[in-house]
Amino acid sequence: MDYSLLWLDWRPKKRLPAYTRCVCGLPATRQGKAALRELISGLQAMGAAPEIRRSPSTGIPAVTLMERPGSDEQVSLRRSGDGIEIAGTGRGLIYGVFHFLRRLSMGEEFPEWTSAPAYAIRMLDHWDNADGSIERGYAGQSFFFRNGKPVCTERTRDYARLMASCGLNGCCINNVNVRGNARKLLTGSYQRELRRIALCFAEYGVSLWLSVSFSAPLELGGLDTADPLDEGVRQWWKETCLRLFTSIPNLAGFLVKADSEGRPGPHSYGRSQAEGANMLADAVRPYGGKILWRCFVYNCTQDWRDTKTDRARAQCDHFAPLDGQFRENVYLQLKNGPVDFQVREPVSPLLGHLERTASLMEFQIAQEYTGQQRHVCYLIPMFREILDFRFHSRPEKDRVSERISAVCAVSNTGDDGNWTGHDLAAANWFGFGLISWNPAADPAEIAREWSILTFGDDPAVTETVTDILLRSREVYEKYTSPLGIGWMCVPGTHYGPSPEGYEFDRWGTYLRANHREIGVERGPEGTGFTEQYSPPLAAMYRDIAACPEELLLFFHRLPYDYRMKDGRTLLQRIYDDHFAGYEEAAAMADAWDKLEGRLDGEVFRRVQERFRMQVRSAAEWRDVVNTWLYRLTMQPDEKGRRIYP
Amino acid sequence: MDYSLLWLDWRPKKRLPAYTRCVCGLPATRQGKAALRELISGLQAMGAAPEIRRSPSTGIPAVTLMERPGSDEQVSLRRSGDGIEIAGTGRGLIYGVFHFLRRLSMGEEFPEWTSAPAYAIRMLDHWDNADGSIERGYAGQSFFFRNGKPVCTERTRDYARLMASCGLNGCCINNVNVRGNARKLLTGSYQRELRRIALCFAEYGVSLWLSVSFSAPLELGGLDTADPLDEGVRQWWKETCLRLFTSIPNLAGFLVKADSEGRPGPHSYGRSQAEGANMLADAVRPYGGKILWRCFVYNCTQDWRDTKTDRARAQCDHFAPLDGQFRENVYLQLKNGPVDFQVREPVSPLLGHLERTASLMEFQIAQEYTGQQRHVCYLIPMFREILDFRFHSRPEKDRVSERISAVCAVSNTGDDGNWTGHDLAAANWFGFGLISWNPAADPAEIAREWSILTFGDDPAVTETVTDILLRSREVYEKYTSPLGIGWMCVPGTHYGPSPEGYEFDRWGTYLRANHREIGVERGPEGTGFTEQYSPPLAAMYRDIAACPEELLLFFHRLPYDYRMKDGRTLLQRIYDDHFAGYEEAAAMADAWDKLEGRLDGEVFRRVQERFRMQVRSAAEWRDVVNTWLYRLTMQPDEKGRRIYP
Repeated sequence: MDYSLLWLDWRPKKRLPAYTRCVCGLPATRQGKAALRELISGLQAMGAAPEIRRSPSTGIPAVTLMERPGSDEQVSLRRSGDGIEIAGTGRGLIYGVFHFLRRLSMGEEFPEWTSAPAYAIRMLDHWDNADGSIERGYAGQSFFFRNGKPVCTERTRDYARLMASCGLNGCCINNVNVRGNARKLLTGSYQRELRRIALCFAEYGVSLWLSVSFSAPLELGGLDTADPLDEGVRQWWKETCLRLFTSIPNLAGFLVKADSEGRPGPHSYGRSQAEGANMLADAVRPYGGKILWRCFVYNCTQDWRDTKTDRARAQCDHFAPLDGQFRENVYLQLKNGPVDFQVREPVSPLLGHLERTASLMEFQIAQEYTGQQRHVCYLIPMFREILDFRFHSRPEKDRVSERISAVCAVSNTGDDGNWTGHDLAAANWFGFGLISWNPAADPAEIAREWSILTFGDDPAVTETVTDILLRSREVYEKYTSPLGIGWMCVPGTHYGPSPEGYEFDRWGTYLRANHREIGVERGPEGTGFTEQYSPPLAAMYRDIAACPEELLLFFHRLPYDYRMKDGRTLLQRIYDDHFAGYEEAAAMADAWDKLEGRLDGEVFRRVQERFRMQVRSAAEWRDVVNTWLYRLTMQPDEKGRRIYP
Repeated sequence: MDYSLLWLDWRPKKRLPAYTRCVCGLPATRQGKAALRELISGLQAMGAAPEIRRSPSTGIPAVTLMERPGSDEQVSLRRSGDGIEIAGTGRGLIYGVFHFLRRLSMGEEFPEWTSAPAYAIRMLDHWDNADGSIERGYAGQSFFFRNGKPVCTERTRDYARLMASCGLNGCCINNVNVRGNARKLLTGSYQRELRRIALCFAEYGVSLWLSVSFSAPLELGGLDTADPLDEGVRQWWKETCLRLFTSIPNLAGFLVKADSEGRPGPHSYGRSQAEGANMLADAVRPYGGKILWRCFVYNCTQDWRDTKTDRARAQCDHFAPLDGQFRENVYLQLKNGPVDFQVREPVSPLLGHLERTASLMEFQIAQEYTGQQRHVCYLIPMFREILDFRFHSRPEKDRVSERISAVCAVSNTGDDGNWTGHDLAAANWFGFGLISWNPAADPAEIAREWSILTFGDDPAVTETVTDILLRSREVYEKYTSPLGIGWMCVPGTHYGPSPEGYEFDRWGTYLRANHREIGVERGPEGTGFTEQYSPPLAAMYRDIAACPEELLLFFHRLPYDYRMKDGRTLLQRIYDDHFAGYEEAAAMADAWDKLEGRLDGEVFRRVQERFRMQVRSAAEWRDVVNTWLYRLTMQPDEKGRRIYP
């Protein structure tokens, strides 16, 4: 095995409760049986040698699995005599067993726990290409595709175990930009491989999803149109779905990136996004299939001279008017912010407009804009902030977490031995799973749990790792692009600083900095983006004084001498953040160095090397952003720190 | 045939002199025979039906080929009775016949002509990769390589004819960045294909050159070093050359990019550039082989914070101290400017330091930084300027043209039907050939000749095309990067504007523009680059008032309000140039439009399309550069023209 098991690498425990000496249960389903197997092997790995019984015997403390019929995911754990009873459907038992093993491994007493996930769809979107590369992948090559074909290996199974162990239940294995051989996933060509993956996933309750190209009828079907209202097109999709869904068990549906960044879509035929999505929804409906329809539709050939068009507005402009027009089995998949996974963005206003449409929030744990798994950036606190965000547009169920119907994250995995390149990046995978199950989960507690499961229970390690994780996003934010403005990264790669890199490009991401001012005005006098929010939020965002400072440059164009609440000028605040961000990154690296000898040497050195990359990159960010602003403004740092001329 | 014959596509002539009715000669060499074939087929294409005789008969006017023994390239044409006599070696006859046919096609009376080329090596460097791609290629794929292997086709022969017809006699078929299968050119793998190409070239007097990797002994020989002083390495190269030169006739030697942009070289082993080059020179010497050793050695991982290091200095710093240490069969190959093929650079000072070393000047007709064969940019006037440049360091033979021993240009060809993507770009190939033969050739006359040979003799076409070509470089310069500063192009692609694209990168190409000033100071108070020139030139370049204005920002850092000789501020001059450059580009496009119906419709439309691209791009350059400077300075255009904020 050339990869680790991450948080599933159970450690031997010195003391185990008496009930670990016996395991009872006779699950009937494949998932229930998998749960039983995990329970036994987990206990064994922790040092128990449990007796295995079909049914409980009075007087013998045991961990008992009670399987009930059905397919829901609810699970309950309770004390039963001197033992523990885990009850649920087959799927429920999986989560129950992993929950139990995690608590046990943590060495914690645990209360009774009855839980059901907040969302029925909790998935990872892999941007894996058929050729084995991964778009925005920072942890090696794909383990789903090799030599142009899907493969099912031992790793596929361990992937499914890791998914289930943190509560995730869906996986889209291929990139939303469907290219090359990935197109053939819809044909019969790879049916056998897909079936294997699907069965492997199914054992752990993980559904298989596929990204499909809207123009598949042209590319594969030999049709001369992909018009969603064309009868031939509808028929082609129906026949394709019949073949696919009947041969691949556990296929949940399709993910579609349409009319986005050059991808084909219904707009090419003068049809609405709803018409496009609904056509596909009709085709998958007979099999209980769902369509995840991305809302990442914007003008990606913008002229930088055009100051009227605002990419931030695009989601709402395109999709808000369509609320209520989508089939029940269509989920609009919207990125958490209005632009694209920057380290700080407001919550996408679109969600506030969807009253009669199912929606799926797309997070990204692949750290495309947040250090690419070379920098540590624990994203769960940010996700929690977003899930807690209130739209102030209805009296109840007004939070993001209450409005969405499902969640997904762009995956951060690859075939690296540690799955995620940076060992600490695995916390984002684990954490995303936990917060997907329970959006009220505490990111600090998740970090602590992940650290103990991954690195063991040495308090010095737990404290340091947890502290690093919890500080990491603010640190990253400080030394990179300030106050929500975003887009200072190198074009194309998105790693490292290039403040003007996108300035005259076609992507609609402009800073418009000059000698006196910086930013895009998005209030009513500007692009009007603020007005896409409900009146109380719009009022807050449009008012410079009321706007949260961390988002000031997302919403407003301001002079460098604008006074922040603490009296510093905007420019000085940016300088300060950049100097501080670097210092804090260096301090995190130092803190890690102190863990030498307290955890596996190879892991220690691997993370140490990443921290060195991060600190070097943080210095680069600090100096480039500060120099760039200094050259524009000619204002030195008030504290006389070094800014290169 | 899926390609044109460019200037060799002889047109029928209404009137031909009487002597075209008879061709005499009995050449003995393959080249002499090729010359005879070209003469006959050329005359036939022009409408003659010449009688072919072995020897002249009194009283019958004829074109007579007189072949003399030897291998020099000298040729003479003279009136002989009522006929024409072309005399030379086989190689000389080739040039003589093409010269004769060109004059005849132009419909011109021609004087007696005795000529020999200024340089024994006049070659094109192709940056073709074995996989068929071309680095900085803007005219399709390679016609030398397909599917990882060299190929010899009909096009190879027509390429050799085109080369010979404009006086070129060498071709390096593969990229100086030797990668992938191109490494195997040194092994026996492709000997048969290389032999075919070499023989095909030889017929037209074109020598074959190969780019080789300095670390070939490691990559191919299984050695553990490529140290030039290692006996095993020397032996490996000797054996490799023995096999190669004895099996491939007409192989002239190797081109080497060593210690440059990540390529391996002698520096890796603590050896000097001379030690590296001489080792190879010893290996090729038994076969009369030569080593072309590129001087493109500089620090390509510079820290932008470092203001002491100056890439412009690198050539001289590395190579001037080595003058006299190279073997006779080593040619130092230096780019025409100290940096990298920008639209305006001073002449590389290195040449002024080479008193006892053979040198080869490298031009680039691939328009990497000059519009990539989408913009018209006729480079021959620039080459002529450079060749005429005086170093003022010795009383005679002080010009570039007198100091160099050879010339080459990075090729602009590919497998596009018109060879060069932009039909007008073929003028650079033709012109480079003519000026290589005779560095005192007149670029205007070359343009005129090329136009007539290519498009026919309609005076309106000739006048327009010649006028466009002659203005094109200054027009391009005006709307792109001003006054010699260079490097405002998009990183990587080098097409289109991105003024700060390279600003914080590792390539040593910085503008260092701030609110008040722009440029790098290269005088004695700065990086001292000016002091690499002879005292009179150094005095001129270091003195801002004496420095040629078109190079002002190459040599000096200046405030935007610096007064140019005509009283305008530097900033206003830049604004003016950008507005004017766009207007002039649009005017060239309009002038072309007026030629509709006067030349082949397909060619007309193809060039028209390129002009549309150029005008769009010129607007982009104008607006981006002006806006960027406006944002920095907040100074509006004095004439109130539109600069986007």
